[in-house]
Amino acid sequence: MISEADYLQALAKVFDSRSAEVLVGIGDDAAIISPQKRALALATDMSVEGTHFSRDWSSLYEIGGKITAANLADIYAMGGEPKFLLVAAAIPTDFSLAEVTQLAEGIRDEASKVGAYVVGGDLTRSSLLVISISVFGEVGNPILRSGAKVGDLVAVSSLPGESSRGLERLKSGINDESSSHHRYPRVEYSKVSHLDRVNVHSLTDVSDGLIEDLSSITKLSGVGIDLDSKKTTSDPHVLHGGEDHVFAGTFSVVPDGWIEIGIVTSEPGVRLDGVAITHEGFKHF
Amino acid sequence: MISEADYLQALAKVFDSRSAEVLVGIGDDAAIISPQKRALALATDMSVEGTHFSRDWSSLYEIGGKITAANLADIYAMGGEPKFLLVAAAIPTDFSLAEVTQLAEGIRDEASKVGAYVVGGDLTRSSLLVISISVFGEVGNPILRSGAKVGDLVAVSSLPGESSRGLERLKSGINDESSSHHRYPRVEYSKVSHLDRVNVHSLTDVSDGLIEDLSSITKLSGVGIDLDSKKTTSDPHVLHGGEDHVFAGTFSVVPDGWIEIGIVTSEPGVRLDGVAITHEGFKHF
Repeated sequence: MISEADYLQALAKVFDSRSAEVLVGIGDDAAIISPQKRALALATDMSVEGTHFSRDWSSLYEIGGKITAANLADIYAMGGEPKFLLVAAAIPTDFSLAEVTQLAEGIRDEASKVGAYVVGGDLTRSSLLVISISVFGEVGNPILRSGAKVGDLVAVSSLPGESSRGLERLKSGINDESSSHHRYPRVEYSKVSHLDRVNVHSLTDVSDGLIEDLSSITKLSGVGIDLDSKKTTSDPHVLHGGEDHVFAGTFSVVPDGWIEIGIVTSEPGVRLDGVAITHEGFKHF
Repeated sequence: MISEADYLQALAKVFDSRSAEVLVGIGDDAAIISPQKRALALATDMSVEGTHFSRDWSSLYEIGGKITAANLADIYAMGGEPKFLLVAAAIPTDFSLAEVTQLAEGIRDEASKVGAYVVGGDLTRSSLLVISISVFGEVGNPILRSGAKVGDLVAVSSLPGESSRGLERLKSGINDESSSHHRYPRVEYSKVSHLDRVNVHSLTDVSDGLIEDLSSITKLSGVGIDLDSKKTTSDPHVLHGGEDHVFAGTFSVVPDGWIEIGIVTSEPGVRLDGVAITHEGFKHF
């Protein structure tokens, strides 16, 4: 059995977090960071083998990248900028150093896309692979789910559903380029990193399904949303598929490159062409 | 099966994190905090059923409290003050609301001892119970493992080993007051919260075993440590037992209430009465 020290040495090579804001990195009881802004955004996501992913069709690199993307998207969905990650992982006893390294590289490479660093973690054993990432971002002026106003236009950075369609293909035994959207979603960080704060009133990432996440906006804002099937679709993959981590928000004016799908109303609930939709989102539950 | 919304509603009652420093708590994509100090300490710990705990002898309240204590101890071991927690948990499908609430109350009550709050989390399903907590603390002047100086006195806040002895008793079928040290260690936060920063040169909490954790100090400081068996003991529970989360450090003068156990030397390694000790710490690995 490979020792913890061997694994940690391999990980130290992958997670080389030199930054002026990281005063103490991996190796002590805790990392010490010195962020530039006073308001910080904190989020965490846990990914469990069998519940969130299958090693039958996802590589460890993809598994690491996907859970990282879910975390980073949470910070962007607050109008923040992700900076630091903590990674806790329970790994099977037969994991090789190469396997741990692949998982770590998937995490590091996704974090690198947005300039974020892994600054600490915990490594332990389990019969099934479990990864939990916490992310810390800086935020100037948070964009909440509770800010939607009647008359706002509802828009998404892209139509969701590709991950859900990919999972369906994978379950049918088809592991191709199209199913890669499930194995490793490509999150459009750039579509939310420069939003005009006066124009955007509420924002979330679609992790549980479009209807489910828009429903959260309506409840927290005390409004309703009418979706237009001509502008979106009635495809269940689009309405209920999760894990694409597209961004959904409400705006005065639809931002460039975003897709308008509906309008904010005063009547509670989420409707498609005026008909209430039940929440059948993608639940890891 | 109980819905995620039902669980979250139960958890919202337990984790009521009203504080001037918590701008946005549970319910959005991320929590927003505004700490008072510029340097932050970040740490994470994962606890896996079968590896770290057994529901055969530990209550869910104890399991929640113990993993929380391990996290809080990490921040104190940096000279920091824990402030905010993120909790990710994968729970078995048969968990009742009462069970989730007990776990959450154990976490909350331990955090409350030091004035820390749960500000966010993630809840998912798994065949075995996994809890991962990340903790964020404020720190003025971090106390690192790398600061030990030749001639420093080595001291512990208490002798470790009670958790290891308790586990031995539990494995023999004895679940009594004495074995409670394993089920739920009582961490001496007050013994490190007011240390004189000029006097303390290095600090850690003993989570992997005294020899293992002192060895980390010697390696990172480029020194050695000689332990005196008359001042400590050669009991393997004391030398190698983990999870008590007593604090160990090196000092100019031993602080009030601490126990002197040895001295920092220039010769590398950790020795007991001059004889090198191999690292047989308590590993979750």
